Amino acid sequence: MPWSVPLTLHPIGVVHTPWKQPTGTPIQGAFRPDVEGEVVLTEELAPALHDLDGFSHAIVLYAFHRSEGYRTKVVPYLDDVERGLFATRAPRRPNPIGLTVVRILAVEGHRLRVAGVDMLDGTPVLDIKPYVPAMDRPDEVRIGWLERALAFGPCTTADDRFHEEDR
Amino acid sequence: MPWSVPLTLHPIGVVHTPWKQPTGTPIQGAFRPDVEGEVVLTEELAPALHDLDGFSHAIVLYAFHRSEGYRTKVVPYLDDVERGLFATRAPRRPNPIGLTVVRILAVEGHRLRVAGVDMLDGTPVLDIKPYVPAMDRPDEVRIGWLERALAFGPCTTADDRFHEEDR
Repeated sequence: MPWSVPLTLHPIGVVHTPWKQPTGTPIQGAFRPDVEGEVVLTEELAPALHDLDGFSHAIVLYAFHRSEGYRTKVVPYLDDVERGLFATRAPRRPNPIGLTVVRILAVEGHRLRVAGVDMLDGTPVLDIKPYVPAMDRPDEVRIGWLERALAFGPCTTADDRFHEEDR
Repeated sequence: MPWSVPLTLHPIGVVHTPWKQPTGTPIQGAFRPDVEGEVVLTEELAPALHDLDGFSHAIVLYAFHRSEGYRTKVVPYLDDVERGLFATRAPRRPNPIGLTVVRILAVEGHRLRVAGVDMLDGTPVLDIKPYVPAMDRPDEVRIGWLERALAFGPCTTADDRFHEEDR
């Protein structure tokens, strides 16, 4: 099978958050670790959440469902010059998949209560993985253009630059 | 738009690795940080890789293109009892998206040389994001059932349990 075959994904659930529109939403969940949300899966997936309550954090993958199109160079929230898209976390991407590491508060049947959400309310969820430092936490990290941006106190909430309109 | 609308993704490239079949492949890239691979994007995406060479690590999202179907409970590589699927990193998932944090060796046009690969050779790549500790590295982490598994010296290579056959 060639690598270029399209892949059709079916969301497994939805995330509910306080964020109703892009403007004012934290650009990263880690910048507002207190903000709570709830991932509600389809009911038949409840068994798949077993054992997750032993973990403190999960990686949530979701669709940037309100992002359309992309450019290969973008001015990211944390800078004022153009950067290569794959050196940014901008939501308009060839495959608009978002990734947030959230803190697990509780697993209740097919519901997962979490903290540190930056997704818009109603965002379709694609996958949930346990966060495991031995797999996900490299040492000796350099962060390129973000070094200066984060050092000078980042703008931590979004504006509408990646959305044609706040629908 | 309801959250349950299917999402069609088009791979942006392919990853070349030494791993030609599941059996013997490291179950996580971090367990074989020395193993090199190359992400080759479609040529028109070369500008999107600009600035990524300032980062030491990237998060690569890809399709588990040889995984079909899933069960909500699985016996993961690192344990001998069933666990909830979303508390594991098993490749057979409702949306078979893989995630590996790789070390960046070089950006050369539309090619990204990396180390720490656990993907099968020919795996379709969906997205590349810069790894940023302030966003991706939580503190005070607990890892549930994996605590014991990792402490006792994990089995670090795959067998064929998640594949009907090694094609």
